[in-house]
Amino acid sequence: MNKTEPRTLSGFMELLPEDQILFNQIKNTIEEIYKLYGFLPLDTPIIELSEVLLAKAGGETEKQIYRFQKGDTDLSLRFDLTVPLAKYVAKNYGNLSFPFRRYQIGKVYRGERTQKGRYREFYQCDIDIIGDEKLDLLNDAELPSIIYSIFSKLDFGEFTICINNRKILTGLFEELELEQKSQEVLRIIDKIAKIGKDTAIKELEKIQIGKEKINKIIEFVEIQGTTDQKLQKLQEMIDIESQSYFKVDNEIFKTGVEELKQVIENIRILGIPDKNFKIDLSIVRGLDYYTGTVYETFLNEHKELGSICSGGRYENLAENYTDKKLPGVGISIGFTRLFYQLKESNLLKIKEKSISKIIIIPMVKDNTKAIKLASDLRNLGVPTQIFLEDKKLKAKLKYADKLNIPYMILIGEDEIKNNFVKVKNMQTGEEIQVELNAKTICENIKF
Amino acid sequence: MNKTEPRTLSGFMELLPEDQILFNQIKNTIEEIYKLYGFLPLDTPIIELSEVLLAKAGGETEKQIYRFQKGDTDLSLRFDLTVPLAKYVAKNYGNLSFPFRRYQIGKVYRGERTQKGRYREFYQCDIDIIGDEKLDLLNDAELPSIIYSIFSKLDFGEFTICINNRKILTGLFEELELEQKSQEVLRIIDKIAKIGKDTAIKELEKIQIGKEKINKIIEFVEIQGTTDQKLQKLQEMIDIESQSYFKVDNEIFKTGVEELKQVIENIRILGIPDKNFKIDLSIVRGLDYYTGTVYETFLNEHKELGSICSGGRYENLAENYTDKKLPGVGISIGFTRLFYQLKESNLLKIKEKSISKIIIIPMVKDNTKAIKLASDLRNLGVPTQIFLEDKKLKAKLKYADKLNIPYMILIGEDEIKNNFVKVKNMQTGEEIQVELNAKTICENIKF
Repeated sequence: MNKTEPRTLSGFMELLPEDQILFNQIKNTIEEIYKLYGFLPLDTPIIELSEVLLAKAGGETEKQIYRFQKGDTDLSLRFDLTVPLAKYVAKNYGNLSFPFRRYQIGKVYRGERTQKGRYREFYQCDIDIIGDEKLDLLNDAELPSIIYSIFSKLDFGEFTICINNRKILTGLFEELELEQKSQEVLRIIDKIAKIGKDTAIKELEKIQIGKEKINKIIEFVEIQGTTDQKLQKLQEMIDIESQSYFKVDNEIFKTGVEELKQVIENIRILGIPDKNFKIDLSIVRGLDYYTGTVYETFLNEHKELGSICSGGRYENLAENYTDKKLPGVGISIGFTRLFYQLKESNLLKIKEKSISKIIIIPMVKDNTKAIKLASDLRNLGVPTQIFLEDKKLKAKLKYADKLNIPYMILIGEDEIKNNFVKVKNMQTGEEIQVELNAKTICENIKF
Repeated sequence: MNKTEPRTLSGFMELLPEDQILFNQIKNTIEEIYKLYGFLPLDTPIIELSEVLLAKAGGETEKQIYRFQKGDTDLSLRFDLTVPLAKYVAKNYGNLSFPFRRYQIGKVYRGERTQKGRYREFYQCDIDIIGDEKLDLLNDAELPSIIYSIFSKLDFGEFTICINNRKILTGLFEELELEQKSQEVLRIIDKIAKIGKDTAIKELEKIQIGKEKINKIIEFVEIQGTTDQKLQKLQEMIDIESQSYFKVDNEIFKTGVEELKQVIENIRILGIPDKNFKIDLSIVRGLDYYTGTVYETFLNEHKELGSICSGGRYENLAENYTDKKLPGVGISIGFTRLFYQLKESNLLKIKEKSISKIIIIPMVKDNTKAIKLASDLRNLGVPTQIFLEDKKLKAKLKYADKLNIPYMILIGEDEIKNNFVKVKNMQTGEEIQVELNAKTICENIKF
């Protein structure tokens, strides 16, 4: 019979069990924390009508979409979790309570050119808080506290949540009479960390911005100091009385500074230590979606990974589907790529390598006692595997070893006769002898 | 601006939050039990190369496939979790330990004609145990004990796991010299519960089977009695000495009976009560995939739902991809459809209606105390939501009520001044007064 070569598409992650265990552990931790903050689960379809999914999209996104016909229907695979959320909220508006707090963890699809660490199928882990007409600014402070909880718990090393407010830059550009070019300027500032200050200046020159204005922009986004010093400098730019040489008399700018101050204040009330967040006036996050607070998160020792959790405030979630004004704030973790990067950078501290806690290996033909013990251990909630194959002892031990199950129990004639078993800690080699009884075994070992 | 109507494709389940909470709870319970039995997680791509995915498929399956081109590549969405497993095991053979026990819970796609309760995107919850060359029969007994654990825990009402062995029917047909027609006969027997005995007899007559043989077949699949009585009758058909009027002198039949006996024996050792399983000689499960033990599971009071968990033993998982012989045994729950059916039949006993356990409602402008309390409660692991919007009290209370959060804490001037809060049980209306302190609150209420 002809065999088909078993292969997986490039750009699609498919892990071996040991990595999958780890992947799921981290994903579950993220989910648990989303739930701890009272977010409701959502699970929208992966396939949507193209007309619905692409109501807004265009350009780059559209090119990457997996789009196809089935019968007469024009279908697309979702490329993010935000558009499906917008559709969902518009569709179910009357049945939801606002603010609507939802999390969704699911696969999304983008037919990007494959390259190392880029995936065509990847998990996004999103939360959003959607208001009806209005949404209090305090919500913008709650999200960083969720980011803080997640990355403290996951323990990938020190991290910093960078916070900015898009209104500040928008106001600044108005003040500098650069509204016409604000999209282009934002695009350049967005990549300043990547391309460096000098290249950024050159690019700003290229779009015909005067030297003085360029200096002001660069100086502004590079304002140094502690969080409070930065806030003070921003305040001085507004205060008529202050000594600041660079004054901004612009309402949007003022609103942005005021919002940023309040967000920072409440972030502190929520208990995020100062070392885990900072104001970064160069943070922009994409081009036209976000309108207020924006976040990016970096690992202090691994800035090269880029932002590992980003998001922000937007004015209107579902304008393509409804006249209702639905402002929101959200964050997203591109989890598949993050997992790849963390693994490549050796930042994954392996916690559990196995699902089972105990493997039982029968050494006699009559498996009754062994099966009974496995059953009893499971009833006590201990994930237990029993080796049922008729193999040589060596093969049985090798299996137990390869699966990284922490404890092993052999059950042979002696064990059954004396009603005692040895429980072996597979990592230390240590053995303890206990009664052949699920409860006694559980009481005598630490999981 | 033109609005696109926000709609979801028919045949795709998209739930409101309250139902989604329940859906996830049940799905998580299934996953927890799969893990309790030591199955390893797998998460294969939803998109595969058509050549790989359809190596075996044909006929009905192929017609239902979501298949499309992306660039030059011919892609398909997976229609089950078994074919991706076969590919995975063949591909990663050298890196896996056998028996390879894996669970996978994920969405699959079939472009069926939509009708009530039929979904085009649906979750399957699968486990399989794959052996290398051989797989002990004891594994066939372990799976029913997993089915038993799941449906005992989920508490949808009394259920029965029906067990058969395909070899018994195969042997019987050989004995009756019906090998040539065995596929057709199996197909008719497979639906006997649905179409009734009389229609089955008519269909068997239609394919030119003699009256005497038909009687033997019908009589056989309808053998009555307790499990032990059925086993005894099967044994008598083999024993040369016995009084049975219908003797079967066929090796495959004998093997089937022997296997069935062993499986039943070990099911009992694993602690499944007799009332939760039975031998049903008419159970067939599909036509050519399964080769030994087969299972179906029914709710005693709701047989009309059909089998809610099915599976069986197969000889060779991955013959389309590899020369290695990989026998296995597995079960599958078609979860999306099951959820729909259970909900329609009012069998879902709602356990938790909300994610959050406590909602905090600030009654004063300064939210500091309220935010601090929310943060402390979360640090203690209590899912907590805080209402941050500037709304009237009535609107705040309505929100708390609609979300079904079990406890509510109002924090106003008095509470802050006296450092005491009232914790209200939203179901009973009962209030207790405790110190405004997360730990004290947790100690005084039951979640």
